[in-house]
Amino acid sequence: MATTDPDVRVCFVGDSFVAGLGDSTGLGWVGRLANESHRRGLSLTAYNLGVRGDTSMLVCERLSREVAPRLAHAEIPRIVVSFGVNDTALENGTTRVSREESITALRGINTASGPTELMLIGPPAVDDDTQNERISALSEVLQEESQRLGIPFVGCFESTVNNFVWRHEVREGDGFHPDAAGYEHLATIIQVPLLEWLTPHANGASQQ
Amino acid sequence: MATTDPDVRVCFVGDSFVAGLGDSTGLGWVGRLANESHRRGLSLTAYNLGVRGDTSMLVCERLSREVAPRLAHAEIPRIVVSFGVNDTALENGTTRVSREESITALRGINTASGPTELMLIGPPAVDDDTQNERISALSEVLQEESQRLGIPFVGCFESTVNNFVWRHEVREGDGFHPDAAGYEHLATIIQVPLLEWLTPHANGASQQ
Repeated sequence: MATTDPDVRVCFVGDSFVAGLGDSTGLGWVGRLANESHRRGLSLTAYNLGVRGDTSMLVCERLSREVAPRLAHAEIPRIVVSFGVNDTALENGTTRVSREESITALRGINTASGPTELMLIGPPAVDDDTQNERISALSEVLQEESQRLGIPFVGCFESTVNNFVWRHEVREGDGFHPDAAGYEHLATIIQVPLLEWLTPHANGASQQ
Repeated sequence: MATTDPDVRVCFVGDSFVAGLGDSTGLGWVGRLANESHRRGLSLTAYNLGVRGDTSMLVCERLSREVAPRLAHAEIPRIVVSFGVNDTALENGTTRVSREESITALRGINTASGPTELMLIGPPAVDDDTQNERISALSEVLQEESQRLGIPFVGCFESTVNNFVWRHEVREGDGFHPDAAGYEHLATIIQVPLLEWLTPHANGASQQ
């Protein structure tokens, strides 16, 4: 029906950071990015599939069945995935998901996405510095594996771990999630590579 | 973990009106309601599971598998469902879903929700007055069946069909969806009964 606007539909699949937990505006980084995209003239349909507490393995497990009904009729379908903080959380003395399992989950997500283009957003920093060491290490191996798989990767750890606004809001919050200003910062980090990746290019239009 | 705040998690399952299509703020009525709830001190976790083009039957088909991972750990889980406009859309001369099938879908949704409390939001008006007649008739039978099933029902048709802002924005838009002011109006209609229903009451707390 659309004569000019490309029909871009994006599923954002991940954890509570994707869901925007703690953001009193209700937008989160996904909502802010969708708005910014709209302001630039690219009216994408954003489906937020962030679930509190989800690890890489849980994201992998539900990805294809939740993405399918949302992208079935899209001219330009895209999947953005983000996880990692919950993988590194301790449960009975060990992390909820091992480094190897996180990598296996990423490979599974890549397979489950089929021909749909995929982008990975790395995990941000939390208030606990020993967990931050694990998040940093996981982010690095996720980046390496993404490169191997040909998945564009946007790191968020370095840009949040030393950011005053982020750290302050996380500490004032629940120790994990910031409020609006933190999510605004996260959106700013992700915005440039994500919107560039989502924008249909003249020479890429025929791929759809 | 929460010592004072009740952990209320709500899945909003439905169509493009639930997804907030056309709202340039990205909030839709679901985002506005979540914000209003937050302002009143009830910090609910809102999962938006609206999908463009979904009929009652498609909502019924995916409800339980999408709701399960989101409400599994909630102290107070709730499901809000909304559909109807797509049921009444014409495809090859007949409606996509018959009146009887819509009712059957509502019964299926009620069953799929299991013990989780459910609320139904009726469909709003669109720009086409012959489709509006079908939406109005469907809204009435949905209300009747909801009463039979003991599901709280919030009608939106009467409050949108004669509302200038709603009709104007829908006409200026794609003929179906309004922009921000229309969604603000829709949120205002739904807000009072929905927030009342979501707020844990002293004598209802033991139900959880």
